[in-house]
Amino acid sequence: MCVRVFPIRKNNSCHVIYLRAAGHQQVYRRPMKNLYGDDVSPLYPRLGPYLSDGRRRVDYVLAYHIQKPSSVRRRSSRFADNSFIRRLRRSLSMRGSQAPLQPKEDPEIAAQEQRTDYHEDDKRFRREEFEENLLETGLELEKDEGSKIPGIGFLKIHAPWNILCREAEFMKLKMPTKKVYDVKQGSNLVEKIRLFIHKVTAPLHPKVDANRPQSVKSLSHPFSREKQHLTRCTRLLYEEWASYSVFYKYQPIGLIRKYFGEKIGLYFAWLGVYTQMLIPAAIVGVIVFLYGCATVDDNIPSMEICDPRNNITMCPLCDRACSYWKLMTACGTARASHLFDNPATVFFSIFMALWAVLFMEHWKRRQMRLNYIWDLTGFGEEEEGEKVKLTCTDRLPAYLTTVVTMCFMIAVTFAIVFGVILYRISIKAALHISNYPAARSNIRATVKTTAAIINLIIIIILDEIYAAIARWLTTLEVPKTDKSFEERLIFKTFILKFVNAFTPIVYLAFFRGRLVGRPGNYLYVVGSYRMEECAHAGCLMELCIQLCITMLGKQLIQNNLFEIGIPKLKKLLRRRKSEMDTKQEEELNKTLQRHEKDHFLGPFVGLSPEYMEMIIQFGMVTLFVASFPLAPLFALLNNIIEIRLDAKKFVMELRRPIAAKAKDIGIWYNLLRGLSKVAVIVNAFVISFTSDFIPRLVYQYMYSPDGTMHGFINHTLSYFNVSDFQPGTEPLQPMHLGYHVEICRYKDYREPPWSSTPYELSKEFWAILAARLAFVIVFQNVVMLMSDFVDWLIPDIPKDISLQIHKEKILMVELFMKEEQGKRLAARDNHNQDNFTSPSSADQSPPQPRSRPVSHANCY
Amino acid sequence: MCVRVFPIRKNNSCHVIYLRAAGHQQVYRRPMKNLYGDDVSPLYPRLGPYLSDGRRRVDYVLAYHIQKPSSVRRRSSRFADNSFIRRLRRSLSMRGSQAPLQPKEDPEIAAQEQRTDYHEDDKRFRREEFEENLLETGLELEKDEGSKIPGIGFLKIHAPWNILCREAEFMKLKMPTKKVYDVKQGSNLVEKIRLFIHKVTAPLHPKVDANRPQSVKSLSHPFSREKQHLTRCTRLLYEEWASYSVFYKYQPIGLIRKYFGEKIGLYFAWLGVYTQMLIPAAIVGVIVFLYGCATVDDNIPSMEICDPRNNITMCPLCDRACSYWKLMTACGTARASHLFDNPATVFFSIFMALWAVLFMEHWKRRQMRLNYIWDLTGFGEEEEGEKVKLTCTDRLPAYLTTVVTMCFMIAVTFAIVFGVILYRISIKAALHISNYPAARSNIRATVKTTAAIINLIIIIILDEIYAAIARWLTTLEVPKTDKSFEERLIFKTFILKFVNAFTPIVYLAFFRGRLVGRPGNYLYVVGSYRMEECAHAGCLMELCIQLCITMLGKQLIQNNLFEIGIPKLKKLLRRRKSEMDTKQEEELNKTLQRHEKDHFLGPFVGLSPEYMEMIIQFGMVTLFVASFPLAPLFALLNNIIEIRLDAKKFVMELRRPIAAKAKDIGIWYNLLRGLSKVAVIVNAFVISFTSDFIPRLVYQYMYSPDGTMHGFINHTLSYFNVSDFQPGTEPLQPMHLGYHVEICRYKDYREPPWSSTPYELSKEFWAILAARLAFVIVFQNVVMLMSDFVDWLIPDIPKDISLQIHKEKILMVELFMKEEQGKRLAARDNHNQDNFTSPSSADQSPPQPRSRPVSHANCY
Repeated sequence: MCVRVFPIRKNNSCHVIYLRAAGHQQVYRRPMKNLYGDDVSPLYPRLGPYLSDGRRRVDYVLAYHIQKPSSVRRRSSRFADNSFIRRLRRSLSMRGSQAPLQPKEDPEIAAQEQRTDYHEDDKRFRREEFEENLLETGLELEKDEGSKIPGIGFLKIHAPWNILCREAEFMKLKMPTKKVYDVKQGSNLVEKIRLFIHKVTAPLHPKVDANRPQSVKSLSHPFSREKQHLTRCTRLLYEEWASYSVFYKYQPIGLIRKYFGEKIGLYFAWLGVYTQMLIPAAIVGVIVFLYGCATVDDNIPSMEICDPRNNITMCPLCDRACSYWKLMTACGTARASHLFDNPATVFFSIFMALWAVLFMEHWKRRQMRLNYIWDLTGFGEEEEGEKVKLTCTDRLPAYLTTVVTMCFMIAVTFAIVFGVILYRISIKAALHISNYPAARSNIRATVKTTAAIINLIIIIILDEIYAAIARWLTTLEVPKTDKSFEERLIFKTFILKFVNAFTPIVYLAFFRGRLVGRPGNYLYVVGSYRMEECAHAGCLMELCIQLCITMLGKQLIQNNLFEIGIPKLKKLLRRRKSEMDTKQEEELNKTLQRHEKDHFLGPFVGLSPEYMEMIIQFGMVTLFVASFPLAPLFALLNNIIEIRLDAKKFVMELRRPIAAKAKDIGIWYNLLRGLSKVAVIVNAFVISFTSDFIPRLVYQYMYSPDGTMHGFINHTLSYFNVSDFQPGTEPLQPMHLGYHVEICRYKDYREPPWSSTPYELSKEFWAILAARLAFVIVFQNVVMLMSDFVDWLIPDIPKDISLQIHKEKILMVELFMKEEQGKRLAARDNHNQDNFTSPSSADQSPPQPRSRPVSHANCY
Repeated sequence: MCVRVFPIRKNNSCHVIYLRAAGHQQVYRRPMKNLYGDDVSPLYPRLGPYLSDGRRRVDYVLAYHIQKPSSVRRRSSRFADNSFIRRLRRSLSMRGSQAPLQPKEDPEIAAQEQRTDYHEDDKRFRREEFEENLLETGLELEKDEGSKIPGIGFLKIHAPWNILCREAEFMKLKMPTKKVYDVKQGSNLVEKIRLFIHKVTAPLHPKVDANRPQSVKSLSHPFSREKQHLTRCTRLLYEEWASYSVFYKYQPIGLIRKYFGEKIGLYFAWLGVYTQMLIPAAIVGVIVFLYGCATVDDNIPSMEICDPRNNITMCPLCDRACSYWKLMTACGTARASHLFDNPATVFFSIFMALWAVLFMEHWKRRQMRLNYIWDLTGFGEEEEGEKVKLTCTDRLPAYLTTVVTMCFMIAVTFAIVFGVILYRISIKAALHISNYPAARSNIRATVKTTAAIINLIIIIILDEIYAAIARWLTTLEVPKTDKSFEERLIFKTFILKFVNAFTPIVYLAFFRGRLVGRPGNYLYVVGSYRMEECAHAGCLMELCIQLCITMLGKQLIQNNLFEIGIPKLKKLLRRRKSEMDTKQEEELNKTLQRHEKDHFLGPFVGLSPEYMEMIIQFGMVTLFVASFPLAPLFALLNNIIEIRLDAKKFVMELRRPIAAKAKDIGIWYNLLRGLSKVAVIVNAFVISFTSDFIPRLVYQYMYSPDGTMHGFINHTLSYFNVSDFQPGTEPLQPMHLGYHVEICRYKDYREPPWSSTPYELSKEFWAILAARLAFVIVFQNVVMLMSDFVDWLIPDIPKDISLQIHKEKILMVELFMKEEQGKRLAARDNHNQDNFTSPSSADQSPPQPRSRPVSHANCY
């Protein structure tokens, strides 16, 4: 990924320099790690984080490949003032690339070397031009090509104080002035409660100064560079953040932002808020689950299924191989289903829909608070200019490719899910035929679990492929700005990964068991495969298993294998690449400088994968929460680990990324918002169509003779006359149950064989369908209304912050007026001398020298 | 209403002075009207818009009551420098109020005079304190209590140039600098299209310089006062804006903003955008209506109703008095219904839902563009401080009162609507009994129309009452800031007026004809009144009549009577109050000064009533558009008049309001957004439940034997055996039709008398209900998705504006860097002298005198 250092101006326009494009390989900020034992004293460092004069700090390090270390080494020198020599050398090498003058021994090798040379020279030109631009902006550079790592050159950059000040002023950074004021938070009572809460949660706060509640805040006006605490940063971050032992503590967000910049700070703040918000959701989810457990024995429908007196004979589940079966055998599934399909689930999905809104609101407020604390309130995201000017016609092929490829990939996902369905159907039929009773009894569980695991593995593999495809497609489109590139990439990746993760779940929730047909008129796919039916108590159980396996599996595999294993492997490979064996390496390790060591760390590849993982998890937690109340708990457990894992990765495993300013989490917020909107409608459908909630309600209030659930099971089963089987589909062993079956039952609302319109959808079917649909409308609109109400009720800016902003404004006015007063007195004297100044002539009066209102803390 | 002039600082905090509170009666800006014949030359004015020195302009005029013109008149003097005298006088009058020293003749009159005096003195103190504060901020005042209007004193205020500059700088107003740049809009093709459109629409643009497309724009940085064009403003506004003859032209928004300020400018811009957007909606609406007209003869259901061969006998419409009737008599209604209830209506409501979204988007872009053109991009709405500190306990009674009163008022509205329903039922029954055949044949039309008119009159009367109640309730709540006051007031008024306007319509759309019961088991209210039924073809027709009368009537009465008539009446009354008869007045009129004449104009009461009227209209246009496709046309015609009416009012009838800065239309945008959301669901319900669209579709695709609509009417009618009538409800004249009726028909989906469950809801009912509900879900979610998509597709900031903002930024950077360059060269010299400056010591270095980057156009 290209990383922007900061804008370098050329030809009177704002140029953005991409380091990768300029022939440099990597850029990373000097990491201030005191963990590796090199205890650097700030005055006499071991040449590590300081330039060769031992005074100027290294702020950034650029690394690049050099082909012939021997020939370039001589150039290792300070060249802050040698632009003449550089220009001379450039013109020389240019001529050199056109016509090499040096005689070579072997013509073939010479030609190859020349090609390499040409390529190398081209790179060097660009590098040198880039370095020249850096010098022009006032940065101070030092080359180090004689490092202990062969083939790698380093360019250390020092940003002098006045350059930092200029850029800060230009970016309108705010800085604390000497003026401080009391921060009084809310009324007395609120303040007391706040203090009490802070006292109670004291052990949860990391032992970092920055997290203490401050009673005074400096009035911030221009800009600042927080340098003073940075040397302590890493050690503190390592101990108080990037460690599993502090998993119960809040994160030291202020410190993270100081060390990594606002963008990464916001990610961890967001992850923290999300994890924190998962706690109540997990608790309520567990309670709902426990309620299901507690009431499983009082559940009349499952009692009726398990009651051996209700001697109900069911129609066969597959053609020929399967035979009639007793409903009683589904007793276990029915009881298990109740755990996830009870009235509490409805409450829980409303709760979770509101939870999602509350989460978004909470995050907005937290973001606002961070913006205020980090003095970003006035900061506007900078729109970058267009790099490439392409017309629509130029872009059309790329867009077409994107659309076609995306559709194709989605079709692939669908095909794979369909394949898994066929696997399930065929395995089930095969197992039915097999004669091992043990195999037959465990048929359902076996098939479900293996299918879910296959799905999981496919999802994880496709995830990686899709990420690569999305990146390729976005590159094809040549977006105008980096921001646009990132957004397009995220959008594509999101769609593909989302479809990938949720297609099997959506199938289970909404299609399985609905496209079955009826006995005597089944629906067949791919020749003779009959579509799957659900267990008697609905598909909710299977949906639940699928969700559980996907969530747990994805998190375990992706966290452990991909986030811990693969980086370690890569690191190993990188070391091997630099052609050293372990012994040499260890020896060298002691003599290596800081930036040379950091070169072996992994590069920072952006926050998108981290966010994406969380968004998909958020989808799992909110979208199908109606069928799996334990999802928030699993997510919570995962995230507690995830935070520390990411922290470890950022502190220890990766090169320190360039700090980037950001006010918000950007497109991710919109994706979250979209998901929480979709969640409402999905949950409405899960409750009304996947669960048996509505049919039970309708039975109880419309059809039940005594107003109880007794007789519900009988009501949901239709009658089928076995003489109406299509020829060739009758069971091979009709006497399997030991008696002759004339009428079998199946789960559907259809007219009985003896009605005037046999096997047609019955009035009950339409009534229940209307009830289901009405529930969807009511649920969706009520939850949406409640969400909007909550959104409206909670102000986006926390009260105390808005009060403080107001206070700051008044203080600024005060300062301004004081200064004005002095000036007015002076002006009055002037006025006495020159008694008449017409308004129109005031324009022409010479500008008076005047200082800016609050420049006391200025750095000049 | 309290009007804020500008903040006056006292005790180190930002005080907002409310003029009314300070004893002054009105404040208004000096209107610059050259229309009344007093042609003021800018150098020697007839003492009108200038202070007595003839040089300093009068910028604001305060008017207040004075009790004893004779005794106060002596104080008419400039008192810019007489604070000592004033203080002396104040202490004197204070003593005077405590113990009057002057001997009085009659003790009774003396006591009364003393009381009045005390009250007067109190007012004067506050006035004087206020005036002192004004002087302190640097304003220049001149009192004029010897005017020709007895009892009214005027305080003329002049804001000197340097005070304006200070305030402007403090408010961070932007002003054009001398640096101008080319505005290149979009690519070549886009630019050409834009120019072409501008050429074509040239006659539509008002003849005002400000509206010409500018190819250069000045780079704006600090602030400005646009004074130069203002004298021309009124005449131009009068000719090119506040006149019905220019109704087809765009509004000169720039000029409006210059004269009235941003807030009023935004209102007219919004009204313009709304009216403009109504044009396509009106055209499509008319086409939909014409489609209905064209297809009325091909409509099979109405053909079947009108066909005399279908000899269908309907059950009586009321108990006893009514008898059986032939379906054929409903032929006219059925044909008329088709005009508003045809498949095109469905298309039209989807169109209007998207139209609403497009309108909001279009407005957002227009607002952004105006923000840019008016240089408001950096302007932040100022949050005012708290004036009153009240705890929750203090506020509780007020909140309770609000909730209770609001509920009560809503209940009153419901009761009145119910009353109108009873009126309709009883009149109908009475007319049925009457023996005049002419009366009977016109029963339906008469009842519908009179009821609608009664509803209209009640709505208009209640509107006025509710506005007063909302204001009273908001005053009770003591909101913290003016903004909060306005928002609360608007919110309450909106709820009450909305409920008031839409309750009868909602009743007609969703409840009428649904709570009827069935023959033999009718639903009775208030003793023996049977609930109303709908005409055979649904209630859509009546809904349509109600909407039409409400819209037209409201607009005609409120526009003509309230907006034109009442202000004229008020003006008349005000003149009479000032105790002059017409002759004297006319004589005086010639000698009156400008501000004295303006005193007789109406005060400006804010924009809320104007916005509210439009929002209710927007509700009419979007909410029930499915039933009344001509609504946008009516709204368009009304708005074309409304713009010029409002313009005339603002230019001619009202005192010139204080200009207020605003970036957006505030809470109104949220209300519009809310309405357009509600519109989606309401239209979904209107189409699926009020119209016959879904039953027709279901019949055609599920029940029709030949796939056509033939037989639909028969399908919608259930059978009733007349022997099942409840005793005493049979018709008195069973032989009315000339033959004996055994089975009559009624509109419902119920089982026939001969089924096993007679008169129960049939399977068709449930199937159609399910289809209706499914349609609501699909419609709502599809339209919401499309709206979100449109919202996402259209960028909030127009492309050309964002390009220009980017360009401005680059130009600013350029200026900044140029300055920096010079400084760096100077700094380098310094550096050579003092070669080492550590970053940490830079803080302590003395601040160098430096000018601000772009201060060339500063006013000093």
